[in-house]
Amino acid sequence: MIYLDNAATTNPKPKSVIDAVTHSLEAYSANPGRAGHDLSINVSEEIYTTRALAADFFGCEEAEDVIFTPSCTYAINFALKGILKRGDHVLTSSVEHNAVIRPLEALRKQGVMYDIVEVAGKAPEDIVKGFRSKIRYNTKAIVCMHASNVFGIVLPITEIGQLCKERGLRFIVDSAQTAGKLPIHMKNMNIDFLCIASHKGLYAPMGTGILIARKSLGTIIEGGTGTNSRLFVQPEELPERMESGTVNVPGIFGIKAGVEFVKEISTIFIYDHEIQLVQTLYDGLKQINGVILYTDRPEKECNAAVLSFNINGFSSEDISEMLNENGVATRAGLHCSPLAHKAFGTETTGTVRLSPSVFTTVKDIQRTLEYIDFFVKKH
Amino acid sequence: MIYLDNAATTNPKPKSVIDAVTHSLEAYSANPGRAGHDLSINVSEEIYTTRALAADFFGCEEAEDVIFTPSCTYAINFALKGILKRGDHVLTSSVEHNAVIRPLEALRKQGVMYDIVEVAGKAPEDIVKGFRSKIRYNTKAIVCMHASNVFGIVLPITEIGQLCKERGLRFIVDSAQTAGKLPIHMKNMNIDFLCIASHKGLYAPMGTGILIARKSLGTIIEGGTGTNSRLFVQPEELPERMESGTVNVPGIFGIKAGVEFVKEISTIFIYDHEIQLVQTLYDGLKQINGVILYTDRPEKECNAAVLSFNINGFSSEDISEMLNENGVATRAGLHCSPLAHKAFGTETTGTVRLSPSVFTTVKDIQRTLEYIDFFVKKH
Repeated sequence: MIYLDNAATTNPKPKSVIDAVTHSLEAYSANPGRAGHDLSINVSEEIYTTRALAADFFGCEEAEDVIFTPSCTYAINFALKGILKRGDHVLTSSVEHNAVIRPLEALRKQGVMYDIVEVAGKAPEDIVKGFRSKIRYNTKAIVCMHASNVFGIVLPITEIGQLCKERGLRFIVDSAQTAGKLPIHMKNMNIDFLCIASHKGLYAPMGTGILIARKSLGTIIEGGTGTNSRLFVQPEELPERMESGTVNVPGIFGIKAGVEFVKEISTIFIYDHEIQLVQTLYDGLKQINGVILYTDRPEKECNAAVLSFNINGFSSEDISEMLNENGVATRAGLHCSPLAHKAFGTETTGTVRLSPSVFTTVKDIQRTLEYIDFFVKKH
Repeated sequence: MIYLDNAATTNPKPKSVIDAVTHSLEAYSANPGRAGHDLSINVSEEIYTTRALAADFFGCEEAEDVIFTPSCTYAINFALKGILKRGDHVLTSSVEHNAVIRPLEALRKQGVMYDIVEVAGKAPEDIVKGFRSKIRYNTKAIVCMHASNVFGIVLPITEIGQLCKERGLRFIVDSAQTAGKLPIHMKNMNIDFLCIASHKGLYAPMGTGILIARKSLGTIIEGGTGTNSRLFVQPEELPERMESGTVNVPGIFGIKAGVEFVKEISTIFIYDHEIQLVQTLYDGLKQINGVILYTDRPEKECNAAVLSFNINGFSSEDISEMLNENGVATRAGLHCSPLAHKAFGTETTGTVRLSPSVFTTVKDIQRTLEYIDFFVKKH
């Protein structure tokens, strides 16, 4: 199988990640932070090490700010609902995933307002201008993705972060497609809440996400935290405040191994490798009759390694199914991002999405191009 | 190590569970329900099979009602916050875990009222009477645990379910200590929402829980569901409505193997085995000078296999630490259940909690008793 659906979750997972999860199940089956026995303490220590590792990796000063969540979607929900109240206003971009839009719609019903800033096809300075122009007296935050999960375009996070700092806004970044690939430094980029899909670019197991919270926030999930047990209310301290109930210990072991894997190879190498592959894809697709591409040629710093296309006369599902029959795993349709499709004029067709990982080879890409070329010529 | 902290999470995990998780990471690393490629479809099918298995196991008619959650705590939050609105009233028991009390306290700040029904030391019919007497015109639901995570006492779930049916109340059951051990049949017991800690009695990995929802409910987490992607609002259909973002695929594979493990051994055997062990513990502790026990001798149907004790003149932490030094893993303190301790008069001392699993042996129990006996005689 040629797996080009890494934007959904990476495949394969590194052996070190699988081994870490297996080892955790075999040797670390104890609930951390809730008991004094050695095994529980050992688990707590491993988890703390992982927090420190993630904090350092993403330019956050405090290990305690690292909150393990079930997914990036939960991280985004926690951040939005933890800071926004009735009467607040928030800005977002025109290419967001439903992981941002659906919580914002739910908040709208509770009296939170939001505006969408057009970003498709705009230069970075115009994007920032767009955000600046829509700030109101009651704007509390900007929430946006680092890079589009459909079209790969990268938003000018550093500049938006600077704007947030100037105007005293909270800045929430959905890094689902970039963490582990593009450089992210929360402090330097003025990111208050970083939402991470660790099962993607950090090569951890599905079922894991991270919220790094550099500012305080309210809760939408409460329960046992193993701390301040006497209180009927959530403790104030991070990370316990945001980690009610038993945490995903095997998943956290997987995150640790995943971050170590990425660090060892280096994000620079991974990003270079992936961008080269989507450039090869882009160049190849461009030469095939009837192929529609939606962005300029992917370039470093401007794009994540995610490419969408269509072929005149075929549905995205048809193309994806043809590739599937040839053993190439891709994704068709809307990719949970109707807003992004609207911005790029693909809301009725969807797109075929191709997304490599560090394990994808040039040969994989060439074969995929051959299948598409053959398909077009045959019809 | 003698591990008697199974009420926190079971240890060891069955080999079949560990193998299932490992296999999932090796061979099923694809996001389900969001793509048409074979691997994604294979994952979806495995997940559906697990839903059907869990529904059947817990007496629910629809596989689609089975919602995979990050933990039992999340399941409880989802159920409570999914049905309760400002002005509603809810009843709960006097032995609840913070997983129930803390969400209720958060809801109280949003205008939901709750009353606590005293259950400690009461006969089943008096417990039901207690609930009945506190029902108001605006009571919407009863939420309670199946068995106490501190003292092991079992609440009369069938009778409370009957009361809920009669009075048109929603019934939410926290089965953290009973799922996989005591019989649970949602339909026969009139349970609307069953909250399950699958990493405990179902021997699945930490980081997994289940909510089985036989009634509709609102959401507190929204995001991509892979269905109705065009909509900015959550789909109405279960389970997608409640499963935003990437699900914990390795964890769900673990749940499947865990339920199969429990079914193969049979809950009757597991429960018998564990109850005999806590009876042996109880009888042994009773003969040791200065030991304080808080319940009658554990009996089938009246108790889950969880036992709390103290020793005059020692803190629960001291005893637990002594056992830890002898290689026995137990838990001291409040066990995230200050309410239960208040009900049993142990709110200042906490208790030492012992909880066996199907893997615990009589020899483990005898050794533990010897360590305690030796400790008391030495002092």
